[in-house]
Amino acid sequence: MTAPGTHLAPERVAIIGLGLLGSSLARAIAAHLPDVIVSGFDADADVRARCAAIHLCDQLHDTPAAAVADADLVLLCVPVGAMGDAARAIAADIPPHAIISDVGSSKASVLAQLQAALPQHDVIPAHPVAGTEKSGPEAGFASLFHQRWCILTPPADARAAAVALVSDFWRALGAHVELMDAAHHDMVLAVTSHLPHLIAYTIVGTASDLEQVSEGEVIKYSAGGFRDFTRIAASDPTMWRDVFLHNRDAVLTMLQRFTEDLTALQRAIRIGDGDALFDHFTRTRAIRQSIIQEGQDDAAPDFGRRHD
Amino acid sequence: MTAPGTHLAPERVAIIGLGLLGSSLARAIAAHLPDVIVSGFDADADVRARCAAIHLCDQLHDTPAAAVADADLVLLCVPVGAMGDAARAIAADIPPHAIISDVGSSKASVLAQLQAALPQHDVIPAHPVAGTEKSGPEAGFASLFHQRWCILTPPADARAAAVALVSDFWRALGAHVELMDAAHHDMVLAVTSHLPHLIAYTIVGTASDLEQVSEGEVIKYSAGGFRDFTRIAASDPTMWRDVFLHNRDAVLTMLQRFTEDLTALQRAIRIGDGDALFDHFTRTRAIRQSIIQEGQDDAAPDFGRRHD
Repeated sequence: MTAPGTHLAPERVAIIGLGLLGSSLARAIAAHLPDVIVSGFDADADVRARCAAIHLCDQLHDTPAAAVADADLVLLCVPVGAMGDAARAIAADIPPHAIISDVGSSKASVLAQLQAALPQHDVIPAHPVAGTEKSGPEAGFASLFHQRWCILTPPADARAAAVALVSDFWRALGAHVELMDAAHHDMVLAVTSHLPHLIAYTIVGTASDLEQVSEGEVIKYSAGGFRDFTRIAASDPTMWRDVFLHNRDAVLTMLQRFTEDLTALQRAIRIGDGDALFDHFTRTRAIRQSIIQEGQDDAAPDFGRRHD
Repeated sequence: MTAPGTHLAPERVAIIGLGLLGSSLARAIAAHLPDVIVSGFDADADVRARCAAIHLCDQLHDTPAAAVADADLVLLCVPVGAMGDAARAIAADIPPHAIISDVGSSKASVLAQLQAALPQHDVIPAHPVAGTEKSGPEAGFASLFHQRWCILTPPADARAAAVALVSDFWRALGAHVELMDAAHHDMVLAVTSHLPHLIAYTIVGTASDLEQVSEGEVIKYSAGGFRDFTRIAASDPTMWRDVFLHNRDAVLTMLQRFTEDLTALQRAIRIGDGDALFDHFTRTRAIRQSIIQEGQDDAAPDFGRRHD
């Protein structure tokens, strides 16, 4: 793959699935690793045509087999429920030395699916904790992974060289890399990503389905806080259906904790315990400060939304 | 107040409470109604000193009585639980013709408090649906109300001229104005603002108090969705304690609906009902599009956060 003595790096990367994440990867590789040849495939012919129109990959293929034929690194960028099928579709054609990775939001299920489909290959699952509420190849951009964390969940017996290659690849795209056990990843992301999405999807549904308040009123007065939730609740339905089905236990565990805490605040409101409310609201304020200090959100008020 | 034949407008406005909202009002008046004289007061001497340092009002006073002495319009910008005290503190000194209004997030309770304290005055409660997660006089800015809705909840027997004056005042600052019954306002805002804040405060508390996941991990991987909630959960604790105590019934009603819907999605996850999840997530996606079309949020992905 590379000359002896140089740092191990892929010369050819195949991207299977060209939505927000896959297309951002193609752009990020073009921007940061211009010598790498990117071959791409998407199962949707319309998406492939749109990718061709914006010249997204060096090589765009009509079959997954053709896309991976010469690859050193294969990145599956499909919903986590489709990982097994996607891996089986390339199993006969992926080169023996190629490393297989992905960008899925749950990891224990993905690791199991990929290892079952490609038992002879290096499987190094990855989750870049980055995204927007938009979908499709036009929504991607090269800087999506800058200063974001990419969590790798290699199996216990993974080859160190394979882990290093995938780590270096993500660092080259501007990400920070962390290694983690897949089960722990799934617990961490259940609280930092999956539960927030579930809550947002819920409240947006609740608000649009009330007798006392019309949907028009909800939209009109959404700047009071509600609109923040609608961004997350505009995320890709297929992707998120799969996340909840494939990280079920961790999500249900976190949801149980959330419900307990919500019940406690509900009681404080009901009995008029202002001190309990004030103490809770003071504690949560500090968390945001830490997130901004760690560079994981914008310090500008209101996410930096324009007020003009 | 104005010469006959001209449109009725206040010549002197008193602002009681110089935090985010009060200081934004002072700036918005200076920007949009430069002929209006603004007198200000805050109960906190430190806040008054900071306001003096940034030359926030035309006249800064050490007592609320002095601030309202010559006012045509008095705007109470204090937490909703403090409205009654704030109104009583000016009752002896507010001119008979002066209209009293406010910017509180709940309205039935505020209307009752203000009418009880100032039974001889025009009371026209108002709620500009605008804000950020920041607090204090330095956090305010003149364009906060641009393109936002300001809801007036005048009592049934309000003088039309008083309603018109307050309406025109808010329009002059760039807001859209809507009239509404106070009880209906409280129901609408319970879902578009108060419930979202309660949910955000809850989940941020839950995430910072887990055994399985450290607070450091929550902060590090917050870009997966969680960070969005921390913005709202960084809002002023006193203000929000009062909102929940003063709009208790509507908040508890909406919370009950939310809990029912959350239980339904929880069940869908537990039994693996992917179709139910997909249908729900597809429906909520449309709401965001409406909010953007109505000009109530930024169309840019990820709230327009910088990715560089």
